[in-house]
Amino acid sequence: MRTHPRSYPAFLLAVIASLVFCTAAFAGTDPLPSWNDTGTKQAIVTFVEKVTTEGSPDFVPPAGRIATFDNDGTLWPSHPMYTQLAFALDRIKALAPRHPEWKTKQPFKAVLDDDLKALAAAGEKGLVELIMTSHAGMSTAEFEAIVTDWFKTAVHPRFKKHYTELAYQPMLELLAYLRSNDFKTYIVSGGGIEFMRPMTEAVYGVPPEQVIGSSIETRYEIKDGKPELMRLPKIHFIDDKTGKPVGINMFIGKRPVAAFGNSDGDREMLEWTGAGSGSRLMMLVLHDDAEREYAYGPANGLPDTRFGTFSQSTMDEAKKKGWNVISMKDDWKRIFSFDQ
Amino acid sequence: MRTHPRSYPAFLLAVIASLVFCTAAFAGTDPLPSWNDTGTKQAIVTFVEKVTTEGSPDFVPPAGRIATFDNDGTLWPSHPMYTQLAFALDRIKALAPRHPEWKTKQPFKAVLDDDLKALAAAGEKGLVELIMTSHAGMSTAEFEAIVTDWFKTAVHPRFKKHYTELAYQPMLELLAYLRSNDFKTYIVSGGGIEFMRPMTEAVYGVPPEQVIGSSIETRYEIKDGKPELMRLPKIHFIDDKTGKPVGINMFIGKRPVAAFGNSDGDREMLEWTGAGSGSRLMMLVLHDDAEREYAYGPANGLPDTRFGTFSQSTMDEAKKKGWNVISMKDDWKRIFSFDQ
Repeated sequence: MRTHPRSYPAFLLAVIASLVFCTAAFAGTDPLPSWNDTGTKQAIVTFVEKVTTEGSPDFVPPAGRIATFDNDGTLWPSHPMYTQLAFALDRIKALAPRHPEWKTKQPFKAVLDDDLKALAAAGEKGLVELIMTSHAGMSTAEFEAIVTDWFKTAVHPRFKKHYTELAYQPMLELLAYLRSNDFKTYIVSGGGIEFMRPMTEAVYGVPPEQVIGSSIETRYEIKDGKPELMRLPKIHFIDDKTGKPVGINMFIGKRPVAAFGNSDGDREMLEWTGAGSGSRLMMLVLHDDAEREYAYGPANGLPDTRFGTFSQSTMDEAKKKGWNVISMKDDWKRIFSFDQ
Repeated sequence: MRTHPRSYPAFLLAVIASLVFCTAAFAGTDPLPSWNDTGTKQAIVTFVEKVTTEGSPDFVPPAGRIATFDNDGTLWPSHPMYTQLAFALDRIKALAPRHPEWKTKQPFKAVLDDDLKALAAAGEKGLVELIMTSHAGMSTAEFEAIVTDWFKTAVHPRFKKHYTELAYQPMLELLAYLRSNDFKTYIVSGGGIEFMRPMTEAVYGVPPEQVIGSSIETRYEIKDGKPELMRLPKIHFIDDKTGKPVGINMFIGKRPVAAFGNSDGDREMLEWTGAGSGSRLMMLVLHDDAEREYAYGPANGLPDTRFGTFSQSTMDEAKKKGWNVISMKDDWKRIFSFDQ
């Protein structure tokens, strides 16, 4: 058998090809490319490696790998207002032609006039009335269709994108990274469970059965021989603050080993997660990037807000308990998939 | 190269080995060995093959393969009383030394005296008092430990086995068969969600997050610096009758393609399942085998009962809507794993 002498250009090409391949392969092994190489990213990777290494004292079998994520402010923006509130206001406007009396009746008049001051003056009672009017009185199937249609057309006032395009790219990578390590990822949000479910699978890869949220009551009815679940104007469950551990226990029946939030509404979820034995990961997204997204707290002297308040007291608890605070400004290379 | 002539005994051995292998392999392909070869078994296999065959008009992608199972009377006995009621009565007896006043106070006296007549006279109000006394007032962690201990020791009065050994063998095979075809199997029971969860994974292969049931309210509290969920004596949700579709929609957010029950409490779950488009499988277990288990209806002239009533009206609806009725006597080769 003869060996052919390798020509120099061919050899060089092979070396270059190898280098390109190796670089690509190396890049492919970074599951969190939109995260800067900071301690926050390291904390995530270290935690996942610890709990997935068999024989490690921190090993958690796949069945116990439960990770819970708040939605508004944690997976997508909650400013200038909660997405669901934007939906409610749009829905009131869409229903207005059928309700001429709303032209002079608060809180509806405020919505139709885009009068945010009058809307604020209507207080919580007014807000509940708007939510119930826009969210109840139809079947679950009808509501799903209404929400699905809205997500197709509604556009975020600042970013001029559909709301479903505004999922934070680093969090999408985190969700996928956890799932590739046999975690079951759940959404545990103060938002409405049936408002989120039509989009969570496509946007976050989270199926309906892994979405926990606030809910109104539904009633089983037979209409024209066909069973329907009618949505009633009555609160069933508020999945916020102390409601989050309650909802987690109700829906999952297991304590998470990792929990991600961004506001005072997530404290109890993180406390509940952290109170389990073994290795745990608790993280809070801090909105400190007014340029690329928003900046609010009031923790760390950031501006105060009504949507997604991150108080100094929550920041103090985070420090005391070793919860990681994610700085959107410092820890995230990009915020949205369309960012450079 | 030479070929060796095959000796006759070796050839025979090879043939026998092949036959043994093929028979074993064939036996191994029957996923429902405890079911008799009746139309009921055929209906199950036909349905599963239809919805799992790609390109078939009835094909359902794995994400939509949701199967819901009632528990009491469907997966294990509900006679002579619901297992959870047996637990409640045992719990009252265990707590009695701390409550000397119960010796003279109904409905507790009836329990301590094993006086079923007085117990029945206490009515629903008395029953709720017994359930709340035995199920509330402790943390979720404490309740889980109490239930787990009880299942380790309590024995069924007729079969003299632990309750967890009384899962119906044909239903265990059905659960496993569906899961091997990428179905997600859920329990949807009128029983208490936190009473079932400590045993469903080990007994049925159903993890806690796939168990839906009735619940009482829980309250998040910090005790000695540690968060706990305290069980309150207040009903949160009744997962029975019209509550079953409500619970399914709340917890899963998808309509099942298959549903299995045994009583009037399961009608709405089967109606809701059957109202979806495409191929569906709805089945009701009929307890018509007094010899091997129990016989009650009152459908089909069987004796009437307070636990797991299968009325003639439910039987009529089953016939009208093409729901399959599983005859324990005719369709099941064995009831329990320990049956011959």
